[in-house]
Amino acid sequence: MLQVKTPEEVLRLIQEEFAPLEGRSEEVSLRDAIGRTLGADISAEEYVPGFDRSTVDGYAVRARDTFGCSDAIPAILTLQGEVLMGQGAEFSLPPGSCCAVPTGGAVPQGADSVVMVEYTEDYGDGTIGIAKAAAPGQNLIFRGDDVCPGKVILRKGRVLSSQDIGALAAIGRVQVPVAVRVTVGVISTGDELIPPEETPGPGQVRDVNSPMLEAMLTAFGARVIPYGIIRDDEPLLAETVNRAVSECDVVLLSGGSSVGVKDATCRIIESMGTLLLHGIAIKPGKPTILGKTGEKPIIGLPGHPVAAYFITKLFVLPLLGRLTDRNMTAYTVPAVLSESVGANHGRAQYQCCRLERRDGALTAYPIRSKSGLITTLAGADGYFCIERDCEGLPQGAVIQVTICSGD
Amino acid sequence: MLQVKTPEEVLRLIQEEFAPLEGRSEEVSLRDAIGRTLGADISAEEYVPGFDRSTVDGYAVRARDTFGCSDAIPAILTLQGEVLMGQGAEFSLPPGSCCAVPTGGAVPQGADSVVMVEYTEDYGDGTIGIAKAAAPGQNLIFRGDDVCPGKVILRKGRVLSSQDIGALAAIGRVQVPVAVRVTVGVISTGDELIPPEETPGPGQVRDVNSPMLEAMLTAFGARVIPYGIIRDDEPLLAETVNRAVSECDVVLLSGGSSVGVKDATCRIIESMGTLLLHGIAIKPGKPTILGKTGEKPIIGLPGHPVAAYFITKLFVLPLLGRLTDRNMTAYTVPAVLSESVGANHGRAQYQCCRLERRDGALTAYPIRSKSGLITTLAGADGYFCIERDCEGLPQGAVIQVTICSGD
Repeated sequence: MLQVKTPEEVLRLIQEEFAPLEGRSEEVSLRDAIGRTLGADISAEEYVPGFDRSTVDGYAVRARDTFGCSDAIPAILTLQGEVLMGQGAEFSLPPGSCCAVPTGGAVPQGADSVVMVEYTEDYGDGTIGIAKAAAPGQNLIFRGDDVCPGKVILRKGRVLSSQDIGALAAIGRVQVPVAVRVTVGVISTGDELIPPEETPGPGQVRDVNSPMLEAMLTAFGARVIPYGIIRDDEPLLAETVNRAVSECDVVLLSGGSSVGVKDATCRIIESMGTLLLHGIAIKPGKPTILGKTGEKPIIGLPGHPVAAYFITKLFVLPLLGRLTDRNMTAYTVPAVLSESVGANHGRAQYQCCRLERRDGALTAYPIRSKSGLITTLAGADGYFCIERDCEGLPQGAVIQVTICSGD
Repeated sequence: MLQVKTPEEVLRLIQEEFAPLEGRSEEVSLRDAIGRTLGADISAEEYVPGFDRSTVDGYAVRARDTFGCSDAIPAILTLQGEVLMGQGAEFSLPPGSCCAVPTGGAVPQGADSVVMVEYTEDYGDGTIGIAKAAAPGQNLIFRGDDVCPGKVILRKGRVLSSQDIGALAAIGRVQVPVAVRVTVGVISTGDELIPPEETPGPGQVRDVNSPMLEAMLTAFGARVIPYGIIRDDEPLLAETVNRAVSECDVVLLSGGSSVGVKDATCRIIESMGTLLLHGIAIKPGKPTILGKTGEKPIIGLPGHPVAAYFITKLFVLPLLGRLTDRNMTAYTVPAVLSESVGANHGRAQYQCCRLERRDGALTAYPIRSKSGLITTLAGADGYFCIERDCEGLPQGAVIQVTICSGD
């Protein structure tokens, strides 16, 4: 008999028992790369910028030619032409001269700074008056200032953001190596379940977990194969799990919260491989099962939707992260608890909440419901944890809320 | 001449000048609803659960029949059959009797509580011994405990999360009214720009803004029409803007940071409609232009990628939110500044940073770069603001970081 494990032990177990899927990266175009997990370090192969570049509209100069000049005594420099946007400055600037350059334009060799047009005067006779001394390097970005060849721009495992897409575009990486999407099979079990589009008869309830899990997994970047609702029939369930294992990287069963079905799930996993976990010291979500067949994880989620949500969020998504070698970062937002919340379970307790901003500070309102079926899910902005060894939190306590709206 | 406006004034201007697009909602299936903006309040039309439901495996009883019982003196109740999962309990429980029910199963009329199987004994003669008194309502969810008809489950304007999808499934809403995706035309301008897949010649740089903006806007839920790179040619630019206005809800021009092109953008907007804004007191991002033609916004973004990023994040996305009547919520994470950051601009200054967790607290490392082209974008975890009236922040200051990795 397997012992109930703490959340920390379960996360460690996931790291130990599962490894990133080998040889499972693919190239996608820049347009399809946002939100994907980078499959390799990305280095620049060129200089950015590729040429000395002005940051202002003005005149490229040799700074020393302007030293000591002022409004009253401008430096007079010979105008050596104009650089146009998108064109090179294919000449060297002689001492005592200057060259007109636009913002972003190339600066000729020899020039080491740019004077803003506001501090200059075009005398119309081929000379320009400079009324403000330039410091070397002023208003100029030198070739390679931003990036030099060989510099690592982005590390393997990063989830690509729009900014990263910009950086990849800048260095010309229009094909990007990313981890493949993990395929997750989702099976709902339970004689009481009907598809959401049907109207429940006596004793029936709609299958909430399949659409919710599909949304969560898809938002995370996985590919979902739905296997629908399977009756509480062990041979049929075993056959479906077998099929899902052959077609997917990960199999999620949800439901079967009655003792018989939980036992069946365990027996099916044991017949196919190894049972790793039976029970997590967490509320809601204790009756969770984890096993593997070959290298493929099979997870038995509780049937209760709130429990299935938390187990997926806290353990299944980190497991998918492990399989794709993704850097998982979670940030929390401090908020003041609006009312006391009790806990006396010897288990880490998770609680959904709404957030409201008042005088700049966030207040967290726990969403309570006797049944905890739907109203604790709909409209939640985030959730917080009451630690295992804590008997509850008083009104006014500052808690750390994980934002879950939008995903 | 329009005055430079503060960020707060610009956000107010957006609220005043633009309104939610009328009659622009559509129905999507539950599977396609995650991340979409809800187009109407959603109310339940049924009871959830639809029947009195047990939360444990055990025996449904009339609580008063168990009062005073114990291990030593169990209450003896007549077994009145068994309710199976997914079936109704189409009878009334007579006094002095009980009925076997599974977790999630229906409880017959008359029963007001369920005794867990652990506290019972089946004598095998058609009677069950109850060793623990039940309180009325114990281990039972009553019909409508979670949701009753007419109850508003989710409010218009909410961005649907996976939890919301679960709640919608529970009440049988498999078609969901959502705001249509706003169509945004993206135009890059500049003679120096080449597509990212090409190799820059002298004086040329790759177009970073088009792919970055496309990624940002798509992640936000907009539909993007890319108009490519347009040369600094006013009639051509005017023609492209005209075409984009006719095909899109919003037009974004980026680039044209040189004086001539900025002026051209203003002239084009004025020839088509009204110029609303020319300059925001923000760094980076000051040379921003906002106008409208009819009810359609046209935005001229700075060419500098970091500036274009911040202006889009801080103003363009809220504008798209306004057009789709989306609830925009932004949360920040407190972090300790790793080093002092100067500012003396009379403008709100935005700075990208990396975040690292140390002893439970987050440390923010400003990403500095002379040019601020790419390295301040790639790999950023978030950004923070140094307020207009602040001369800088010291090392160790606690700052509020907006997380931007992953979007």
